[in-house]
Amino acid sequence: MPRLYVLVLSGGAGTRLWPLSRRDRPKQFLELLGEGSLLQDTVDRVSEFVPSERIFVVAPPEHRALIHEQLPDLRADHLVVEPYPRGNAAAIALAMAALAAFDPDAVVAVLPSDHVVGNRAQFRKVLIAATAAAERGHLVTLGITPERADTGFGYIEAGEKLDLDSPIEVRTVKRFVEKPKKDAAERMVAAGGHYWNAGMFVWRVEEILRAYERHLPRTAKAIEALRDAIGSPRYESVLAEVWEETDHTTVDYGIAEKAENVAVVPADIGWQDVGSWGRLAEIVSKADNWASGDLVAEGAHGNYIWAPGKTVALIGVEELIVVDTPDALLVTTKERSEAVKTIVDRLKREGGEDLL
Amino acid sequence: MPRLYVLVLSGGAGTRLWPLSRRDRPKQFLELLGEGSLLQDTVDRVSEFVPSERIFVVAPPEHRALIHEQLPDLRADHLVVEPYPRGNAAAIALAMAALAAFDPDAVVAVLPSDHVVGNRAQFRKVLIAATAAAERGHLVTLGITPERADTGFGYIEAGEKLDLDSPIEVRTVKRFVEKPKKDAAERMVAAGGHYWNAGMFVWRVEEILRAYERHLPRTAKAIEALRDAIGSPRYESVLAEVWEETDHTTVDYGIAEKAENVAVVPADIGWQDVGSWGRLAEIVSKADNWASGDLVAEGAHGNYIWAPGKTVALIGVEELIVVDTPDALLVTTKERSEAVKTIVDRLKREGGEDLL
Repeated sequence: MPRLYVLVLSGGAGTRLWPLSRRDRPKQFLELLGEGSLLQDTVDRVSEFVPSERIFVVAPPEHRALIHEQLPDLRADHLVVEPYPRGNAAAIALAMAALAAFDPDAVVAVLPSDHVVGNRAQFRKVLIAATAAAERGHLVTLGITPERADTGFGYIEAGEKLDLDSPIEVRTVKRFVEKPKKDAAERMVAAGGHYWNAGMFVWRVEEILRAYERHLPRTAKAIEALRDAIGSPRYESVLAEVWEETDHTTVDYGIAEKAENVAVVPADIGWQDVGSWGRLAEIVSKADNWASGDLVAEGAHGNYIWAPGKTVALIGVEELIVVDTPDALLVTTKERSEAVKTIVDRLKREGGEDLL
Repeated sequence: MPRLYVLVLSGGAGTRLWPLSRRDRPKQFLELLGEGSLLQDTVDRVSEFVPSERIFVVAPPEHRALIHEQLPDLRADHLVVEPYPRGNAAAIALAMAALAAFDPDAVVAVLPSDHVVGNRAQFRKVLIAATAAAERGHLVTLGITPERADTGFGYIEAGEKLDLDSPIEVRTVKRFVEKPKKDAAERMVAAGGHYWNAGMFVWRVEEILRAYERHLPRTAKAIEALRDAIGSPRYESVLAEVWEETDHTTVDYGIAEKAENVAVVPADIGWQDVGSWGRLAEIVSKADNWASGDLVAEGAHGNYIWAPGKTVALIGVEELIVVDTPDALLVTTKERSEAVKTIVDRLKREGGEDLL
């Protein structure tokens, strides 16, 4: 794929996997599946066809060292630092400016760093199709084939087929649907032609910058002011100045839902969102009980135990999730694991900040 | 109480509190209740009225260092080492020989090191009564007032009242009942006059040695052969020789159930057996959930979590027991916690010896 660049999004606090994920080590840095971190896996899965000099990462300053540690091949000037979180629209615009300075003709795949993709070969085919559409001027989203009527994702309704010579059909987008109610989700899944919005995009840098100008002009203006400073000593101070002028929104709300030239590639790529311990347990739990190490179980079923370096003994327990870290121990059920959010909120309020 | 000595029994593997209790640190050495170990607590509760030079401990050789560490006031020559386990009859006989050499007129209270006694004042009164009876030649057992028809203990049926001037009535023993079936336990508790046998005794050294001669003559003979060697360089080699000649039994079966001069003092002393995690949870769990440190709970009830130094977060779980140690993590329920035995057996068979 000539000229395909990758921008990896590494923002986000990821407290939903507390107590393993922490402010200084959100989930993308964790080795959750035992084969490198999610971030490393994200880069690894494109590295067969995207050389390292065409990989960019955008992240907050506090994770700079960790990113270089985990991605030693990443070029120092390809790590774009967002001064503080403003939603991913600003972060992506900032990275697009860096990319445009590097290669104004770039086509770029924007990929979150905390997803699981099971089918790499298909993922590559999807990127080829998306690149073909992006080169024709489309802002392309990857639409995940829905496995169930999940109400935790936004949906994309596909429209007309584009006339492209690509291995997978690409379609126009009829509409974006925000996280639906259960019955609406069921109708969309039953109808077909609807996909989960996983926040993965492919577009020409030129095209997305034009879209910013149209739909998020404040952000476009702020970033425009920065472009001349890229590579110069003024960069940091100009960035500090313009950053607060950017729109505080996401690229989905701010651009994708408004633009006319959005397209979708159906992506049947074994995609998984590691959004909670319960989801992670589903992803890895092929066995009846899953433990990070040695396991001895008696009358125990469906448990997921994260306790690295320890032998785990289970007796008479079912559907539990236990996460053991050096300073905190979480004990919950698969059903209730999303309530970790409540625990994190309470720790914030009740003086447990050092555990976050 | 003039001339009252104490012998603390510190044998036993205590794997029922695995993974906290280990071969090299059985439960009596653990700080389970947050106020010294059970062993330290056992000595502490008599130290108000028994000076340290009248306290003896019998234990296997591998715990010698740990005992001196936990009981720094214990005289070196008062730690009686049993070469290897032969049941407590032999260990007690060995300690009685050491005591007889130190003070032939001694009256001694024999106390397990792994019990909880909640009411110390009453315990002292019980010992005063028991000592009075022991001085009159009785082998006195402490009979725990039963709280429920438990089938996990042996029972003692009391007989005639002894004519003694003591703060608590002492009675002859009509019979010992081995661990009963549920209906038999219920009948005994309903009838009154029946007590749990907790393995605590008070007797004159002279009297118990006479009882060994009558009921366990092999043990008596072996220990008799050792008596002249006490304090001499020959002691270790003579002990090694005679030890295998002792009867392999307990003092309950071997002596108490056979002797005629056994008496019982009702002991309403807040006694508790820490025989399983479930029992320990009952003892300490005054609160809805109990954790060793900071606790944050959401919709969680009746859980007992041992995870020293960690903040514990519980969401939507009930009646669980979790025990977190550096190399092993146990997750079970209060109801099933006794099955830890099964796990320990499996670890023995399946190459997990290093965890025991």
